Amino acid sequence: MPFLCNAWYAAGFAEELAAGPIARTILDQPVVIIDDGNGGTSALSDMCPHRFAPLSMGRIAVGTLTCPYHGMVFDSAGSCIHNPHGKGARPAALQLRNYPVRQQDGIVWIWMGNPSKADQIAPPSYDFLSAPENTVLRGYLKVDANYELVTDNLLDLSHAEFLHPFIMPEGTATAIRYRAEQVDNRVSAYHIMPDQPNTPLFELVLGPGVQRIDGFANSHWQAPANLMLETGAKVLDEGDGRLVLLPQTHLLTPETGTSTHYFWCVARDRNIVAPQLDAMLHAGLANAFEHEDEPMIKAVQQRMAGRDFFEMGPALLPMDEGSVRARRVLAKAIAQEQV
Amino acid sequence: MPFLCNAWYAAGFAEELAAGPIARTILDQPVVIIDDGNGGTSALSDMCPHRFAPLSMGRIAVGTLTCPYHGMVFDSAGSCIHNPHGKGARPAALQLRNYPVRQQDGIVWIWMGNPSKADQIAPPSYDFLSAPENTVLRGYLKVDANYELVTDNLLDLSHAEFLHPFIMPEGTATAIRYRAEQVDNRVSAYHIMPDQPNTPLFELVLGPGVQRIDGFANSHWQAPANLMLETGAKVLDEGDGRLVLLPQTHLLTPETGTSTHYFWCVARDRNIVAPQLDAMLHAGLANAFEHEDEPMIKAVQQRMAGRDFFEMGPALLPMDEGSVRARRVLAKAIAQEQV
Amino acid sequence: MPFLCNAWYAAGFAEELAAGPIARTILDQPVVIIDDGNGGTSALSDMCPHRFAPLSMGRIAVGTLTCPYHGMVFDSAGSCIHNPHGKGARPAALQLRNYPVRQQDGIVWIWMGNPSKADQIAPPSYDFLSAPENTVLRGYLKVDANYELVTDNLLDLSHAEFLHPFIMPEGTATAIRYRAEQVDNRVSAYHIMPDQPNTPLFELVLGPGVQRIDGFANSHWQAPANLMLETGAKVLDEGDGRLVLLPQTHLLTPETGTSTHYFWCVARDRNIVAPQLDAMLHAGLANAFEHEDEPMIKAVQQRMAGRDFFEMGPALLPMDEGSVRARRVLAKAIAQEQV
Repeated sequence: MPFLCNAWYAAGFAEELAAGPIARTILDQPVVIIDDGNGGTSALSDMCPHRFAPLSMGRIAVGTLTCPYHGMVFDSAGSCIHNPHGKGARPAALQLRNYPVRQQDGIVWIWMGNPSKADQIAPPSYDFLSAPENTVLRGYLKVDANYELVTDNLLDLSHAEFLHPFIMPEGTATAIRYRAEQVDNRVSAYHIMPDQPNTPLFELVLGPGVQRIDGFANSHWQAPANLMLETGAKVLDEGDGRLVLLPQTHLLTPETGTSTHYFWCVARDRNIVAPQLDAMLHAGLANAFEHEDEPMIKAVQQRMAGRDFFEMGPALLPMDEGSVRARRVLAKAIAQEQV
Repeated sequence: MPFLCNAWYAAGFAEELAAGPIARTILDQPVVIIDDGNGGTSALSDMCPHRFAPLSMGRIAVGTLTCPYHGMVFDSAGSCIHNPHGKGARPAALQLRNYPVRQQDGIVWIWMGNPSKADQIAPPSYDFLSAPENTVLRGYLKVDANYELVTDNLLDLSHAEFLHPFIMPEGTATAIRYRAEQVDNRVSAYHIMPDQPNTPLFELVLGPGVQRIDGFANSHWQAPANLMLETGAKVLDEGDGRLVLLPQTHLLTPETGTSTHYFWCVARDRNIVAPQLDAMLHAGLANAFEHEDEPMIKAVQQRMAGRDFFEMGPALLPMDEGSVRARRVLAKAIAQEQV
Repeated sequence: MPFLCNAWYAAGFAEELAAGPIARTILDQPVVIIDDGNGGTSALSDMCPHRFAPLSMGRIAVGTLTCPYHGMVFDSAGSCIHNPHGKGARPAALQLRNYPVRQQDGIVWIWMGNPSKADQIAPPSYDFLSAPENTVLRGYLKVDANYELVTDNLLDLSHAEFLHPFIMPEGTATAIRYRAEQVDNRVSAYHIMPDQPNTPLFELVLGPGVQRIDGFANSHWQAPANLMLETGAKVLDEGDGRLVLLPQTHLLTPETGTSTHYFWCVARDRNIVAPQLDAMLHAGLANAFEHEDEPMIKAVQQRMAGRDFFEMGPALLPMDEGSVRARRVLAKAIAQEQV
């Protein structure tokens, strides 16, 4: 299946870009993202139009890229500004594709389709990632599977009991009240877990001693594969009654048809969650995503062996409603784009 | 070429299954084989019909499999007996493919075709593997080549002089009297080696001092790729006259079109062959199959580079008659199955 | 694109063959090259016509090859001279393809096309490699890229400033006077670098102290991918005026469509270049070709991702004239051969 092109994809974290250029293949296209030297960001094709060398192998300065093979210099708009050879001809074809790019909420967003349409749609807004009361934990992993399998995983969180002991205690999947909802082209999957035993995750956040919580984890998807997860817990123990939120983004960007860049963020309210817990919280979640989700999703990709998901006739269950809706919304959007 | 489906394939050894479930890809299909808890064996699709996770990654108990991804529980017939989510719906599609399976002579046999036809044909019978006077040595290797190349290797044993010094002394290939015979759909290749020098293999079995033997190794093939080898020697030295048999099975099961599960068994008469020789005998044969045959067969696979054997126009010799007959019997059976 | 068949390709160095047989895949065909025992050389298919085993895995004696699988013996003309089995039948099909081969100037050349046409064309002559006043440094590398990308690299040496500090000082690419010339089916690319600072390469050759040189590097290509490079320098410093030449061959032979055997030779006049410098000269050049050119050419191959060079619409510059001409000459020759 082709990719959705006229859409914003997460290309990296702003803090990553602050540390240096980002070179990443996105939708099968090599891209290099740089500081443009004017307070902005440029995302350019990471392939010299002369002889197809990767520009990210060369010297990258603020606002310019120098091809490592023949020394062409490109500015942050992708125009060749210096040809060191002979009379220095700079034919029009010496132009890098310049992808629209935005920085918002600590995320670097890239637009992979028709640049003239980029202004018609804003990147997803996740303002809790930049709210002053919040601190944000971030992580990246590469998943060796198609990005829609990762979306599936995030629109049905009932797998947590079976994969993630840190997140969901044994025997609690049964109690999840699942509900999917589609509003226009957005799909939400609500997971309500009333009066359940506390989890290791929330024990970390709430401190020891809490017995019972109302838990919830509501996944909000928009095409192509950007998800916000409202996760949180309300303490039920007598005399407590705290409400703690750990809102998350899970931003999935196809590297290729069979590999996915997975950027995740979890916000914590700095007034509630003690900063000394950040490392443990990060480790617990990174472990869940990298060492519990990823191997399973990769195994599913291998079992599918290149076949189409629906053509394989999956035995769909109520808790698959969200992911099935998301797959259909995306397939329709891609089909419309191919017309 | 497609595989023959309505046929018994060796899937493993009974002693292997006794030690735990067997997860193996057979004819490109992932299969998990378990003790069914009722004294029987079950071979089931190793892919959850819900979201395609490998069931063998999950908990396997006697008679049940639990999907590692979402916790569905399947019984030994492949039926979902527990869905831990919501109201526990168990749609009919939550059913694993259940492959007919038999245990016989220490081999676990699987039927990869139409289950209703499994009773019409019995698995190959190799009763010398379960005869009370015999002890059986067993081995397994994976061959990085198509299974028919392994069949070829076993229906012309003249290669032994060139690959297996343990089995055939230098200079003796010339003396092999080769004869192939086809009876219905079975092919035999007789290798008679009259009055030849003793071999390291039979020196191990017979003890030191034997000079001359009548050797023989007769391969009996049936589709798809199961072979019985009558190998043995009669001592010619004056005053001796012992006859020793080392009957073997070589059971070849395609993992994929370019890789093969190779199960071998060698029986020895416990009254003749001293048990302390078992380890040396096993080591000598395992070395021949794994380190002498396998690299050569794999090299042939690579040289063929995906081309069809007959279309490459091999320069066939009299000793190829058996393997050519077997290839033709198999091709015809597969063609009939495709109608 | 198919390969040009009726052409001479470098298959190895004579000194390599003197040390033992050469087994190499050339144009996707496995070939084994041996001393024929009569003072000549034989290049034979490295695949037994019986069962397709690699002959180079077997015993190779002067003038004969013995198949490692079934012991067939072939002579240096590729004829089977011994079948150790049964009556020793040697059907006509037991014949190895025998490739025309020549040794000239220390190079072993192989003709991959119609053998009857081999005498109509002589292998490229590089007599400076065998001139008595010269010593020759030789090297081999495998390039993980299509051979035409290596040709491109050698017909535009302006990349040296950016990849090879040993060969071209920073800031000197601009001063190169580039000129391409096509005479019949040969293409030359002249790189004249008048009055430039000395280079580390020529400092090694000329000794310390030289300030300014006239440098030149003229690449002479003939199909399919054999290049001679006239490289040298004339010292401009007052009272000096030495002229030093380091003529080179760069012989590119496709292993497959995406990998290339790269044989290089550099001749030095034994009266000019001190022999104790050979090791440093060899190391400097090998480093340039293996660790600077190869990774870049491989990266370009990966960026092209199987696409056709011209269909990708490269932004061609004046310095690409030579390589574009060579690509067109070769494409035309291949097209004529396919008729």
